[in-house]
Parts: sequence; C-alpha cells; structure tokens
Amino acid sequence: MNDKQVKEITSRDVDFGKWYTDVCMKADLVDYSSVKGSMIIRPYGYAIWENIQSVLDKMFKDTGHENIQMPMFIPESLLNVEKEHVEGFAPEVAWITHGGSEKLDERMCVRPTSEVLFCEHYAKIIKSYRDLPKLYNQWCTIVRWEKETRPFLRSREILWQEGHTMHATEEEAKEETLRMFKVYEDFQKNYLALPVIVGKKTNKEKFAGAEETYTLEAMMYNGVALQNGTSHYFGNHFAKAFNIQFLNKENKLETPYQTSWGVSTRMIGSIIMTHGDDRGLVLPPNIAPTKVIIIPIGNDEKVLEVSNSVNKQLKDKNITTKLDNRDKTPGFRFAEAEVKGYPIRIELGKRDLENNQVTLVRRDTLEKIIVNIEDVVEKTQELLQNIQNDMYQRALTRRDSMIYVANDYDELKEIATNKNGFIKVNWCGNVECENKIKEDLGIKSRCLIDDEEVDGPCVCCGDKAHTKIYFGKQY
Amino acid sequence: MNDKQVKEITSRDVDFGKWYTDVCMKADLVDYSSVKGSMIIRPYGYAIWENIQSVLDKMFKDTGHENIQMPMFIPESLLNVEKEHVEGFAPEVAWITHGGSEKLDERMCVRPTSEVLFCEHYAKIIKSYRDLPKLYNQWCTIVRWEKETRPFLRSREILWQEGHTMHATEEEAKEETLRMFKVYEDFQKNYLALPVIVGKKTNKEKFAGAEETYTLEAMMYNGVALQNGTSHYFGNHFAKAFNIQFLNKENKLETPYQTSWGVSTRMIGSIIMTHGDDRGLVLPPNIAPTKVIIIPIGNDEKVLEVSNSVNKQLKDKNITTKLDNRDKTPGFRFAEAEVKGYPIRIELGKRDLENNQVTLVRRDTLEKIIVNIEDVVEKTQELLQNIQNDMYQRALTRRDSMIYVANDYDELKEIATNKNGFIKVNWCGNVECENKIKEDLGIKSRCLIDDEEVDGPCVCCGDKAHTKIYFGKQY
Repeated sequence: MNDKQVKEITSRDVDFGKWYTDVCMKADLVDYSSVKGSMIIRPYGYAIWENIQSVLDKMFKDTGHENIQMPMFIPESLLNVEKEHVEGFAPEVAWITHGGSEKLDERMCVRPTSEVLFCEHYAKIIKSYRDLPKLYNQWCTIVRWEKETRPFLRSREILWQEGHTMHATEEEAKEETLRMFKVYEDFQKNYLALPVIVGKKTNKEKFAGAEETYTLEAMMYNGVALQNGTSHYFGNHFAKAFNIQFLNKENKLETPYQTSWGVSTRMIGSIIMTHGDDRGLVLPPNIAPTKVIIIPIGNDEKVLEVSNSVNKQLKDKNITTKLDNRDKTPGFRFAEAEVKGYPIRIELGKRDLENNQVTLVRRDTLEKIIVNIEDVVEKTQELLQNIQNDMYQRALTRRDSMIYVANDYDELKEIATNKNGFIKVNWCGNVECENKIKEDLGIKSRCLIDDEEVDGPCVCCGDKAHTKIYFGKQY
Repeated sequence: MNDKQVKEITSRDVDFGKWYTDVCMKADLVDYSSVKGSMIIRPYGYAIWENIQSVLDKMFKDTGHENIQMPMFIPESLLNVEKEHVEGFAPEVAWITHGGSEKLDERMCVRPTSEVLFCEHYAKIIKSYRDLPKLYNQWCTIVRWEKETRPFLRSREILWQEGHTMHATEEEAKEETLRMFKVYEDFQKNYLALPVIVGKKTNKEKFAGAEETYTLEAMMYNGVALQNGTSHYFGNHFAKAFNIQFLNKENKLETPYQTSWGVSTRMIGSIIMTHGDDRGLVLPPNIAPTKVIIIPIGNDEKVLEVSNSVNKQLKDKNITTKLDNRDKTPGFRFAEAEVKGYPIRIELGKRDLENNQVTLVRRDTLEKIIVNIEDVVEKTQELLQNIQNDMYQRALTRRDSMIYVANDYDELKEIATNKNGFIKVNWCGNVECENKIKEDLGIKSRCLIDDEEVDGPCVCCGDKAHTKIYFGKQY
C-alpha cells in the first residue's frame, strides 16, 4: 500500500457506506469468504474485540458475574415455550435438520439468543432463596439469518456476550438491569470514546419477550443511529413459562425475576463510523491494540538504536507499540499507520536525533508535536490521555450538533427529509403515531427521554403528549 | 450437600464411568439440558477452561501467533474441495438447510474443524514470500455429530482452539508442527500435571487430509487412553487443492506448506480422570480457579477476623482464594471443598488460634499440616508447588506401572484381555496387522515410539518389524 492507495478510500462525505467498507477492508479488520452473510474477523479486527472482551469481562466479574457456556443449539420445542419470544426470533434462525446423513427427529436452530436455554437450566438449579441471585454471563457466537449484511453492523454470525440473571425480587432485577446498562455506558464512554444516548425503548421496539428494554444509541458520523447494546428487564413471565420457582425464607414458593443484557462486535462498527476519517481508522487509545507505532526514517544505525530504545521504554510502561522499520518509504509506512488508526506515530530521523528530538503525530488531528528525546515516554502518556479525551469531546460535539427538535409534523417531516440525526419530539405514547412516523418518514423511535418535561402536544396526532422521545434513521 | 452425599459418589474402582459422571455433576462442572449430546459448562467448569485459555493464549502469542475468527458455517461445496478431508468429516457434521422459513440454495454444515475456511482465506491473502509465514489461531466451538457423548470427552459441541499456519518451506512447516506439539506437552505437564506419551500416529489413525499427525496420549486412572491434543503437518496438498501460491524471492510461483494443531475442553476430562479420587475432583494448583479455600470453624469473632486476614494476605500474593463462612457445619463445608478439588483447605478454629496455628489440608493426599499463623502465606506457597509436583509424579508413576510389553500375539492377547494400559509391541507397519489387533482385541494403535530400537518381529504377523508402537483402549 502506498500513499496513493490510501487515497483510494472513498471520502466519507461522498459515499459513507462505501467509505465504511473501504476502511474495514484497507485496515485489515475483516475479509469476505464464500460463506455468504458471515465475515472473517482478521487479526487486527479481532485484537480490538479481545481488548473489548478483556475490559468488559473484568467489569462483569467485578460486579459479581460468572461465565458459563450453554449449548449453541435450541430444539424447536424449547424455542417455542415463550410465545412472544419465538414470534420475534423464529423468522430469522438457521435450522439444523440433519446430523451426518440422518434426519433429526426434531429440528434445532442455532441460538439467536439464549434466554430459553438459561431458563431451562435455572429451573433445575434454583430451588431456594439461597440460590439467588444467579448472575451468569456467556461469551459466544449467535446466528440470525439476516438478508442484508455489513461487516460488524449486521451479520449472520455475531460475536457477543449475553448476561442472564435471576433475582428474588422485582426490585433487585430492575437494579441489575440498570447496573449493567450503566456498565455499558461507562465502558463505551471511557474506552471507546463513544457518547451514547441512553433510555428506554418503546413497547414496539423492545426485545421480544421483555417487559422493558434499555438501549444505548450511538450516533455515527453521518447522523445515523447504531444501537450499541441493550439491557432487558423481563419481569417473571419467562420464569413462569419455564416453571422456575424457589422457596423463600418463609418456605413459600415464589417465582424469580429476570434480566438479560448484551453487547457485540457491532461496537467495533461504532468506533469506525464515529471516529474514522478519509485516511482510515482512528482508534481510541484505551482500546487500540497498538497505541504507538515507531517509524525510523532512513537506515542510520543510531536512529535504529534510539528507535529500539524508545520502543523498549514505552513497552516497559505497558504501552503497546510496534516498530516499523520495514524496507519501505516513510510515506508508505506513514500512510499505512494512518489507515490502521494507531493513536500516535513517532517519527525519528537523523536530523531529529541531531536536535535531540522526535516527532509525535496524533492520528486523530494529524497534529505534529516535537518533543525532546528524554521526555518521549512522559509526553506519549500525556498525549494518549489527551487523544482519548479529545476524541470523546469531538464525538459529543458532533452528535449534539445533529440533535434536532421538531414541534409539529411539518417540522418533523422537513428535518427527517433533509437531515440525518436524532429528532426530539413530544409523543402521545400510541403505537399508531410511532408507526405512521416510521412509514411516512423512514425514521424509527430511538428511546424515551425521561429527564425532560413534555412541552407540547404529540408531534404526530396533536393529542396530549405523555413523553419526549428521539426518532432517527438507524443501521 | 453433606458428608453423606459426597459419599454418594460411586467409587472409581467399582464403576469408573459412573464415578466420572458423578464427579462432573457433584463438582458442578457440567449439567445436561434438552439439547441432546451437548453439555452446559457451569461456572466452575468454565473457570477451569478460562484458565487453560489464558495460559495457552499467552504461549501462542509468545510464539508469534495471532488470533482470528472465521465463519462457523461451511458451504457443502467448500467442504468438498479436499477429498480425504471431506470423507473423514462429512459423516459427522450438522447440516443447516433452512434460514428462517426459506430453504437454502446450498446447505452448509457447522464447522467440524476449519482447514477449508483458512485455506480459502489464505489463497486470497498470500501472494508473496513476504506474506509468509502466516501464524493464525482461533478459539471457537466446533460441532461433530457424535452418537454417544460424555461430558468433556465426546460431545456434539466442542470448545477448542485450532491453529492453522502456512510456511514457505516444508522444513519450516515441520518445525512449526513440532514446536506447537512441544507447547502442548509443556503446558499439560507444567499446568495440568499430566504426563503424556507423545509420538506420531499411524497412517490409519492420522487426521483426515494430513501427512503426519503427532498426538499427546494421556493415560487415565483406569488405564484407558485419552487423546489430549494433536498437531498436524499437511505438506502442501491442501494448498494445491485451494490454489494457494506465492512468489518467492526469485519471483517464481511456489506452493506453501501447512500445519494445524488443536486442543479442547477434553483436557478437563483428562484432569478429572487422572487426578480425581473417590471424594471428587482434585485440581492441580497451576490450573485451579480457586487454589485455597479458607474455612473458619465456629462463629468466634477473632476466628473470623484472622480468617479474613489470611484471605487478604493470600490474595495479595495473587493466590486465588475463597472464604467459606456459610452457616453450615464444618463437615459439610469440608466435604464440599473436597468434591470441588480445591488444592488446599485452610481450617481455622478457636483452639487453633489459642495455639497460634492453622491447619492446611492437602486435597491430593488429605494430609494435615499444622503451621504457625505468621508462616501461613509462605507455607501455602510452598505447599502449592509441592502439590503440583507431587500430582505429576504420582500420575507418572501410575502411568508407568500400566505400560506393558508384549513380545508375541499370545502375550498381547493376554494383556489386552485382562488389563487396561498401554502395550508396547514391535510392528511391521502394515495396516492389516493394525486392523487385526483392533478387531480381535479392541485396542487401537496410540502412537509410534521413535526413541527405541525394534527388538523382535511384528507382534501380529511375525514378519520383520519396522517400529515399536503403543496399543491401548481409548475413550
């Protein structure tokens, strides 16, 4: 790849969809195969997922959760136990009908999500209040038979985690739903530098079988929403369907309350589409597999020696680095470092050495910062922190600049027709209005806004509004 | 669970199969569900797998490997590309025929292993000698439609890792095959305390499509073999079938050479069946999720205070611990600790405190060791190391006591009929003899012995022998 090839990335302002695919491919994140609708996650893309897993897994364990591994198959009769759930998922599952050359007595689907498997297990292992809460999580691959797919955003196979918990009381289960929702929000803010709008989904948009679904809605560079994770409160109707009961302290049978919550590799899509630019990927330092790339210029022995020393000093501070001294032009190596989105590039040539300095280049702003060689570790540490903060602030500012308010249907229509972004409106709460807006304007409800007062009639029917709500286009 | 319930574990000398299942269930390692042939790996079992993954993943990365994630499905036409391979696997794959309500144009199987997926990808990304070697690994679940299943040993779904590498030369690929084979051997010895017999498989027993398969053969307590991992050298016939070619330094097209290697949750079965006893699981300290369990006896405030202090001191030394001060009898808590196989149990009562001492109980020998309270951390660290070493030595001694030599067919028959274990024989190398021994005596070739000279004729046909080889029963 050379500087010219990098420029072959489509401009994100010209064709955002093409830009996205270009970045995914040129940064070596994914590849296609003959398995339609699935993707290969290449080492660089998978390293981002490994970092995500490692941080989240610790957050889950710190909040008392244990990992478990359920079967990947669900017999049809088991999927059918909870009515709303099966209606939501049956149309998009992959069915196994044969094992070797034999037809199965009962077909099984590959799990699209694992509520029913967890419920069946919980029915066996929950007997007493002493067995509660059960706080389980699973890292696995799920399958949903999507017709149109896109790397990370929508794929037939999705790498994700799914937490499934059971609690003695409604109150505890609701607390858990919000606790894990907050874990997601903190993670996305502090590691992925993603500002997310958080809130409850409407009844229409909630998870099949849930009583309440909380969603994290990220806004991409082009103003389109990406649902970045959800946390569900189930009440106890799954538990009832699966006959899960426990003896309380008074030795009476009760039915426990349930939650589930999940995030997936889709978050990698969010990182790309929130932070990336026309030169490629831009990774937040806190999640980047390689935080610093060191590029020596020329073959001078002293230059290589100092490059190696800087590399070692940074590694000693637990900063992940790469030293790129391949026999390629500096222009080629700079361009590749930009496509890959390493947060900081350190350039080091003979003339720099004569001046006792090196150049740090920020990937997010492309700003060049000249520092004394003896300060390089300290300045790099500072700069990584600054880049992380600035990336979040920049994303927040851009997002806020694309949040609109519509007071009546004409305004809503005008905004929805001409702009992407989130549109804040008053809403009566009726699904008829939600449906009409979706059908007429191609925008869907994102989430309810619970910290703002209603200040007008429903944007659609003009009747009394009960809540404020965001609408917007989505992936 | 109380002391009585623990005793409900079948004795391993009475019914080894039943003992194994009892331990898997009583130690909360696995559970069954309505998904026939699959298992639920419960938190305690999964924590062992997480430790295995964490150590091996570091060993793989330290030897230059990168993780990747391939699709889980394989279209039938892709599986069919390599003839021997498809013949080996097609009879035992699960077929997906429908996505939602639509019949697929081409059915796909859930990967039984991923050679063909890696080859297809390698054909796209390997162009030049500069692209080699490619050293990829994948952690995933595979599916093989087994008829009879047992927790960890044989399951329709298997959690494993599969390394797939490509090299410019035959020599490099062979080195890689042996390098990863050695990584496995070191890991199983140093972490799992498993002595394994290592060597090449016969042509009959090698992996479908491989030129050479190296195997790690562990011997269970009952003398039956468990294949604990394999490393394959493929030559370049897969590469030829998939048209993978690269330009060498002289700008000429060459075909690269390939390896693959894998280990799975089956190793957990090996740990159980090598080290376990009639009281339950016995875990080697280097892989145990909880190395030490602290059990305060009675409700004395000072006892609880010192227990907490010991707990904290051990945690500060990165020793994983649990403090079990549940309102249960000491007998109950001791029994449960034994079933779960925690390497060391620390008992601490009022009288111990008066004597300024605590009792350490080794799970492997049940020996009680009284130490002064101020020495508890140091003695625990020493003891963990001793337990690890002793468990390996004990397994080694038992295994060696069950290795037999048969000089002729009568001897072979006599041993195979009356004893389990590995039987060392001279062999002509012909598959007819290998087949006859298997059919007559129910024992299969385990691996070739390459460091011992032939010292007699073939044990079966009496012709000139070409090698020594182990036979034995297997799971």
